[in-house]
Amino acid sequence: MRKSNKKVNAAIVIIGNEILSGRTQDVNVATISKWLNDLGVKLDEVRVIPDIENSIVMTVNELKKNFNYVFTTGGIGPTHDDITSKSIAKAFNMTYGYHKEAYSILENYYGKKRFSAGRKKMSMMPVKASLILNPSSGAPGFIVDNVFSLPGVPSILKSMLGGLNNKIKGGKKILTKTISVQTVESEIAKSLENVQNKFKKVEIGSYPFFRLGKIGVSMVIRSNDKKKIDDCHKEIVSFLKKKKINIIGKK
Amino acid sequence: MRKSNKKVNAAIVIIGNEILSGRTQDVNVATISKWLNDLGVKLDEVRVIPDIENSIVMTVNELKKNFNYVFTTGGIGPTHDDITSKSIAKAFNMTYGYHKEAYSILENYYGKKRFSAGRKKMSMMPVKASLILNPSSGAPGFIVDNVFSLPGVPSILKSMLGGLNNKIKGGKKILTKTISVQTVESEIAKSLENVQNKFKKVEIGSYPFFRLGKIGVSMVIRSNDKKKIDDCHKEIVSFLKKKKINIIGKK
Repeated sequence: MRKSNKKVNAAIVIIGNEILSGRTQDVNVATISKWLNDLGVKLDEVRVIPDIENSIVMTVNELKKNFNYVFTTGGIGPTHDDITSKSIAKAFNMTYGYHKEAYSILENYYGKKRFSAGRKKMSMMPVKASLILNPSSGAPGFIVDNVFSLPGVPSILKSMLGGLNNKIKGGKKILTKTISVQTVESEIAKSLENVQNKFKKVEIGSYPFFRLGKIGVSMVIRSNDKKKIDDCHKEIVSFLKKKKINIIGKK
Repeated sequence: MRKSNKKVNAAIVIIGNEILSGRTQDVNVATISKWLNDLGVKLDEVRVIPDIENSIVMTVNELKKNFNYVFTTGGIGPTHDDITSKSIAKAFNMTYGYHKEAYSILENYYGKKRFSAGRKKMSMMPVKASLILNPSSGAPGFIVDNVFSLPGVPSILKSMLGGLNNKIKGGKKILTKTISVQTVESEIAKSLENVQNKFKKVEIGSYPFFRLGKIGVSMVIRSNDKKKIDDCHKEIVSFLKKKKINIIGKK
């Protein structure tokens, strides 16, 4: 895999009425994001949209121009509400139909006798797409240009990511350091802002937490430059020491 | 609260690098969505965007035109990465500064001596905003026009929603029925599609599940028309009976 210093970014489109209705809790964003971090790709936007063709077409067309990679999740199953494949074909103005390789994979997976119309539908997609193989349940995802379409079921999605590593050309790996302290945000706000102003290209986040009855703050430093993270980390530790604020965790 | 038959919809903007990085799992979408369902408001889009002023301004400006209500979560705390209030002021071209009522609430909450610069920052917002009171931790959210800004910490956000019920003019309450069966999606795909074609205005979703080693499908019917849901439900139960498919759960 070639690495470049250029920032490489991505967006996720979650296609799913069940997430919007509050019925289902999305967990795919965190899975994809962590996988992308390791490949040096920064997730910069997520959209959750309904199972409506026009929404999918418009959203995908907008995001594929603005991000290096776009991942869609959901809507590639056999039922009437699974309209992602058809919508992606429309977004790219490509023919939608039986994908030969996908058809043959699914026919083998189910066996000729059990290869019903519903199952056949899962091989319908942009006919010239590349496939994303599915080691869990047969039905492949697919790639058109910089858009990767994955299923919504978390365990299946997760099992398919590994096979994609060589399809992603990331930048430098995004590194993180976290310092957790026993204080409230307002006590560290000014000093942390000073550090941020000194290290403009490092991303410093501050997140209050309430765990086991304790109030605390986690400061998260992110960058693809190890030296900058280390320097930034030192400055934070130094102001904490001056302020006599207890560090309760480092990662 | 006035009820209308017109469809009322909403969007959520999650402002948070910590969600995009995969560090934190969002749970606020489901909380807000379920609360909106009860008020007759349909959540139609969610965006997760980084803590970058320009992204917030552009996203809020786009969504506030296209949705009846927009909710933002996160970025209203005391640290340098909390830039939601300033960005919302910019989106509406309003003055950003100390909000008198918010200032006085926070001064009372912390006491004059402990009312530090960081804590004072939490009363900075569009100066003409209406406040959203915070029964958990003092710092209020705020409303400008149809945009509601809430904190990111789930327990605090949850505690603030109840106070907003009378600020939302919803449509008819969105009702749901769910039928769970022990089969695979491809077995019911065609029959379910026929039902969907008959009830065009009812939203029917099909969601495979894997629980306790069992494979199944949940069919979810959503509409604000109780009669249509009931009729649709009957048709589904009827085709399941014909196909001798076991119903293992109803809600």
